[in-house]
Amino acid sequence: MSTTTDHGDERVPTTASPQELVDEARRWWQTDIIDVRPGEISLRGYPIQELIGNVGFVDTIWLMLRGELPSRAQAALFEAALVASVDHGPAAPSIAIARMATTCGAPVNSAMASAINVLDDVHGGPGQQCMELYLEIDAELRRVGHLDDMVHLDEATRLVLQRHRDAGVRYFPGFGHRFHPLDPRTPRLLSLVDAAAAEGVVNGRFAAIGRAVEDAISEGRPKRIPMNVDGVTAIIYCELGLTPEQGRGVFILARSVGILAHAVEQMTQGGRIKGPMPKSIGYTYTGPARRPLPNDLDR
Amino acid sequence: MSTTTDHGDERVPTTASPQELVDEARRWWQTDIIDVRPGEISLRGYPIQELIGNVGFVDTIWLMLRGELPSRAQAALFEAALVASVDHGPAAPSIAIARMATTCGAPVNSAMASAINVLDDVHGGPGQQCMELYLEIDAELRRVGHLDDMVHLDEATRLVLQRHRDAGVRYFPGFGHRFHPLDPRTPRLLSLVDAAAAEGVVNGRFAAIGRAVEDAISEGRPKRIPMNVDGVTAIIYCELGLTPEQGRGVFILARSVGILAHAVEQMTQGGRIKGPMPKSIGYTYTGPARRPLPNDLDR
Amino acid sequence: MSTTTDHGDERVPTTASPQELVDEARRWWQTDIIDVRPGEISLRGYPIQELIGNVGFVDTIWLMLRGELPSRAQAALFEAALVASVDHGPAAPSIAIARMATTCGAPVNSAMASAINVLDDVHGGPGQQCMELYLEIDAELRRVGHLDDMVHLDEATRLVLQRHRDAGVRYFPGFGHRFHPLDPRTPRLLSLVDAAAAEGVVNGRFAAIGRAVEDAISEGRPKRIPMNVDGVTAIIYCELGLTPEQGRGVFILARSVGILAHAVEQMTQGGRIKGPMPKSIGYTYTGPARRPLPNDLDR
Amino acid sequence: MSTTTDHGDERVPTTASPQELVDEARRWWQTDIIDVRPGEISLRGYPIQELIGNVGFVDTIWLMLRGELPSRAQAALFEAALVASVDHGPAAPSIAIARMATTCGAPVNSAMASAINVLDDVHGGPGQQCMELYLEIDAELRRVGHLDDMVHLDEATRLVLQRHRDAGVRYFPGFGHRFHPLDPRTPRLLSLVDAAAAEGVVNGRFAAIGRAVEDAISEGRPKRIPMNVDGVTAIIYCELGLTPEQGRGVFILARSVGILAHAVEQMTQGGRIKGPMPKSIGYTYTGPARRPLPNDLDR
Repeated sequence: MSTTTDHGDERVPTTASPQELVDEARRWWQTDIIDVRPGEISLRGYPIQELIGNVGFVDTIWLMLRGELPSRAQAALFEAALVASVDHGPAAPSIAIARMATTCGAPVNSAMASAINVLDDVHGGPGQQCMELYLEIDAELRRVGHLDDMVHLDEATRLVLQRHRDAGVRYFPGFGHRFHPLDPRTPRLLSLVDAAAAEGVVNGRFAAIGRAVEDAISEGRPKRIPMNVDGVTAIIYCELGLTPEQGRGVFILARSVGILAHAVEQMTQGGRIKGPMPKSIGYTYTGPARRPLPNDLDR
Repeated sequence: MSTTTDHGDERVPTTASPQELVDEARRWWQTDIIDVRPGEISLRGYPIQELIGNVGFVDTIWLMLRGELPSRAQAALFEAALVASVDHGPAAPSIAIARMATTCGAPVNSAMASAINVLDDVHGGPGQQCMELYLEIDAELRRVGHLDDMVHLDEATRLVLQRHRDAGVRYFPGFGHRFHPLDPRTPRLLSLVDAAAAEGVVNGRFAAIGRAVEDAISEGRPKRIPMNVDGVTAIIYCELGLTPEQGRGVFILARSVGILAHAVEQMTQGGRIKGPMPKSIGYTYTGPARRPLPNDLDR
Repeated sequence: MSTTTDHGDERVPTTASPQELVDEARRWWQTDIIDVRPGEISLRGYPIQELIGNVGFVDTIWLMLRGELPSRAQAALFEAALVASVDHGPAAPSIAIARMATTCGAPVNSAMASAINVLDDVHGGPGQQCMELYLEIDAELRRVGHLDDMVHLDEATRLVLQRHRDAGVRYFPGFGHRFHPLDPRTPRLLSLVDAAAAEGVVNGRFAAIGRAVEDAISEGRPKRIPMNVDGVTAIIYCELGLTPEQGRGVFILARSVGILAHAVEQMTQGGRIKGPMPKSIGYTYTGPARRPLPNDLDR
Repeated sequence: MSTTTDHGDERVPTTASPQELVDEARRWWQTDIIDVRPGEISLRGYPIQELIGNVGFVDTIWLMLRGELPSRAQAALFEAALVASVDHGPAAPSIAIARMATTCGAPVNSAMASAINVLDDVHGGPGQQCMELYLEIDAELRRVGHLDDMVHLDEATRLVLQRHRDAGVRYFPGFGHRFHPLDPRTPRLLSLVDAAAAEGVVNGRFAAIGRAVEDAISEGRPKRIPMNVDGVTAIIYCELGLTPEQGRGVFILARSVGILAHAVEQMTQGGRIKGPMPKSIGYTYTGPARRPLPNDLDR
């Protein structure tokens, strides 16, 4: 390194006193989530040693995100959605990336990071976007004053979908699947929401909205466009009061399980610098034919 | 883009038939974990619709990693370790990074990825390294034939620790804490391991090994070097039969909960391009004083 | 791992012949950029061994992104923008993250990845967004037919800015700085653009547009809102014909230099699990006071 | 969020005065690299406005990493190594990942991050490891006092290689290639090193060491194991005095160019959630056959 002279103190000019600066620095990071002092940790006010062994992992996810513990019935419905989302196989880019990463020498944290990173708007966003759609229909119903009965549901649904179509939307997140004619996760999760609604655990409002969307977008088509796992987990997360951002986050938590399992399996299988395809398949070059550098290369 | 001529097919030369190439390509990605066909998904052989609502999220993590479902008692001990590991506050680089990332415009997947990525050997590895240490002591005991009784435990522990010290190791992963004089998670988790051992859920062998390590490294010191959360979760994961790599992975899964909660909280708080400290604090420049370019700049 | 039975071949049903499948697989990845065969590599058609030593790194960046080599004068202007963007110090979250990552045990690739990842819309996007703004003004000028003279520039600029203000935009990317009253990079880069325009290397159109934006947004304010490094590099990238996406990409390439330098410097400095602030500063907990678990905890 | 009470100040206890705390906080981040004050930026002491337009991008990379500017001849050799490393096509996992990421909705920063992240020990480390090997041979020569003449080079090389073989190393980084019988980048770069050594720009010592390694590992084999791009860039970086860590870093900078170009090309090509292979190829499931949940499922 170069010889150094300690002549710089890089900051914006300030007239604050040392105490004011310390106070400002201490407020720079603040959180409602966790209180850590020497020998003490509490999450949302609950001492960690009381949570451990008394409260489940799913309850803790809920507590960390929302500030309070769920009821057992809320946790059970939430848990079903998490279980449904853990994996969809190595043909998904996120899973393939986790596996490729380990063959590049990446440890499990890094393989998981590269994989989770691609759960972006297209690969990881449909659940969140579907929640936003449902909430928009919900807001439309509330706007016209139909809070409790759902008689105007189809109308509100059509209105909202049309708004999106007018804005250029061609397909709706949470409906249809590129691989499954009928997503096997959907009917099972829907029946759990219906049971929870029957028991008063949730309201059932978003299950109705989700079905109304499926009806509306399938109308006039030879084949229904059935709700997929994103469409039905969006119902569950809306029923349970999660925000769309939280919904996306818990999908990522769930899928992280599959990402981890595949990363670890690939480590066991071995392989070095695994590309997307065998070398005997290769890829196709479509660029210019081999050419010399220009004669007048000006440098 | 440039004008293209389709003249390239980039691959290694092969004499394989098309069918052989297809077969090779289909074997390129293979997995024991998940079977996905149109309309069907099963995890480790279990249809997803049977898992949903019948099997918990923690059971599913275990199933995905290990191939079979845990017993209820195994899952409970595993779950306690997961709950213990969800967060340690925004002073940890991983959590701070998740929060900073959201203020840079990163969506939740990307914020989580940047954060998880730094759970590398130093920040996320001690649990894994501690498992490796315990397993090394376990192997040493087995090597000298003391499989069942633990009378030679202290000797084997000292021998293994000395081996590490001879290789330059100065401190041992899983013991001591930079912040907590006594980690509040340790006694609670240890008592759960002991209870599980008393009920025959686990063997108790690694709880004894962990305590022997604590004794050995504290010997001759004015103050004990107490087991921390990594040391005790390493006991649990070893007792339950996880590999060190899996142990690191499930720590990451658990800590992802805190990472997500902090990312979402920061989104709610707002802020743009949040640096590590307020600008009034700034940073210190220790390089060369301001200087002109050299006179003889040769270009 | 579980006992395995090779019974699955996960794919969508197909009636394609093996040869058709191989052809489809070979077309799955295709590129105009690079031709790699055993013993041969060419970039955009140029053999790598001819590029090496004859063509500069900046020329190669241009070639890779755009398909053809730049003139020397184009490369020089492009290079000036790259040099200007390499670093803005450890108070920037990206740089702080790179440094924190290395203290967590992350190797340099991983530290760089976590850092680059946060160059998202807010931290890394203003240059791209500013290019889009300039191109929108350019399109507005073209729409009304003023291709060559710029007499209607102020009008088009005001119209476009008003469109953004009507959509809720409060500040414009590329103008104003949270730290610098006047960004020292701006006048120097602007003078290089002007010189290049005088020599016919570029058109000068976007330099005029950029200045018109600065005038328009400063109008009626006590103090000008001066163009910052994003505003002026956006001029350069537009003048040189890069797309906004490419502009963001080359900013990231440039900033990666600073990210790397800081990561390596932190490795030299050492440190373990470096948080954003010293522990004596800590953070502020603003959540609920310590509380016991609910009495009626239902599990 | 929960109702909050500002009762927490999470930090380690301290008796430091406010001024001492401020000083500690200000020293928390310190750097020799960049001095940023309102209206002023300098890199390694040089004002940014003097660097822009006068100093090249490659010079700036060198300056940022090493503290001083290179000579023109040093920069030219360094630049040749950077040009050689920009890309190796979409069959490489890093490039494939960048392309897949964009089809998942990831912006260019995020696609680049996921890709760069996998340039870990196996995919991005051989150059660094080869530098370490050369430096070990260099140290061995110095140890036995042969600083200037290289007469004992073969002996020192054999001794070091044997040491690695004894430790279980089966192949050496920087030699051999899975795809190229002869790497087209090697002879061109070697001739540039030789020319630079002839002109006294570099010493030539590491070129000799690299060739000695190639001789030694090829000895007794039917076919030579030729030096690849990592082996020859390792020579260049050692000749120029970079550390192995810096060598890995600059390889990543160079490869980032290819990563960016492929990410942007994929954005132009479009595609959504692009997996590693077409769906008609799919993958192979090798796990347990479909099975019902156990009858005695204990939960």
